[in-house]
Amino acid sequence: MTTVPDKTAAITDTVHRYLELVAQGRADEITELYADDATVEDPVGSDVHVGRQSIRKFYGNIENIKARTELLTLRVCGNEAAFLFRLEMDLGDNTMTIEPIDVMVFDADGRIASMKAYWN
Amino acid sequence: MTTVPDKTAAITDTVHRYLELVAQGRADEITELYADDATVEDPVGSDVHVGRQSIRKFYGNIENIKARTELLTLRVCGNEAAFLFRLEMDLGDNTMTIEPIDVMVFDADGRIASMKAYWN
Repeated sequence: MTTVPDKTAAITDTVHRYLELVAQGRADEITELYADDATVEDPVGSDVHVGRQSIRKFYGNIENIKARTELLTLRVCGNEAAFLFRLEMDLGDNTMTIEPIDVMVFDADGRIASMKAYWN
Repeated sequence: MTTVPDKTAAITDTVHRYLELVAQGRADEITELYADDATVEDPVGSDVHVGRQSIRKFYGNIENIKARTELLTLRVCGNEAAFLFRLEMDLGDNTMTIEPIDVMVFDADGRIASMKAYWN
C-alpha cells in the first residue's frame, strides 16, 4: 500500500461529509465535493451523469427529502473508497430504507472524480 | 435498471462460487472464473495483475492457506457486483480476519472481467 495517512484521513472525512450532506439534502454542497468533470453512476447500470451541472441536477432529486444516513463499513485504499451505508428516507406515511455500496475515486485535490452506487 | 434476472442470478452464483473456492484455496478453479484478459487489483492501489497467467500466480499465494469465507452483503447491478465479505485465515497459532469490499465487473459470458478489492 502506498496510501499516505493524510490522504486516507482526507478521503474518510469527505465520505463522512458526503453522507451528512445527503441526509440534509444539500445538493449544492454535495456537488462541490465533486471534480468539475466528475461522473456519477447511481445505480450502476443506469445512465452516467457527467460534469457538475448534470450531477447537481441528479442530487436535486433528494433536495426536499428528509433522510438519515449511517456509515456501516468504509474501506479506503489508495485514491479510492468503498463503503456500505444505510439511507433511510422519510416519505411521510412510511420510510424507505436502502443499504447501497458506493465506490468513489478521488483526484489529486481530494475531490470525487467518480462515484458508482451499487443497490437494488 | 436493465438487469435481466437471469444475469443477476448468474453473477450471484459466481460470487458465491468465488468465495467458496477462495476458502478452499483452489487457485486453478478461481482462475477459470476470470476472462482471459481479466484484471485483478487486490488491494486497490497495488499493482494490477493482467491476464490469467498473472492472476493464477496471484491466487497461488492462498493455495495452501486454510480459510473460511462468509458473504456479508452483496449488491448486483447491471454487469457488476459489489460485496462485503469476511475472510478468516487459519495461520496455525492464530487467525487473521479481514473484511474486504470487492467489486467485480462481468463480461457477456459471465466471466469476471475485472476485480478490485478494497481492504486495509
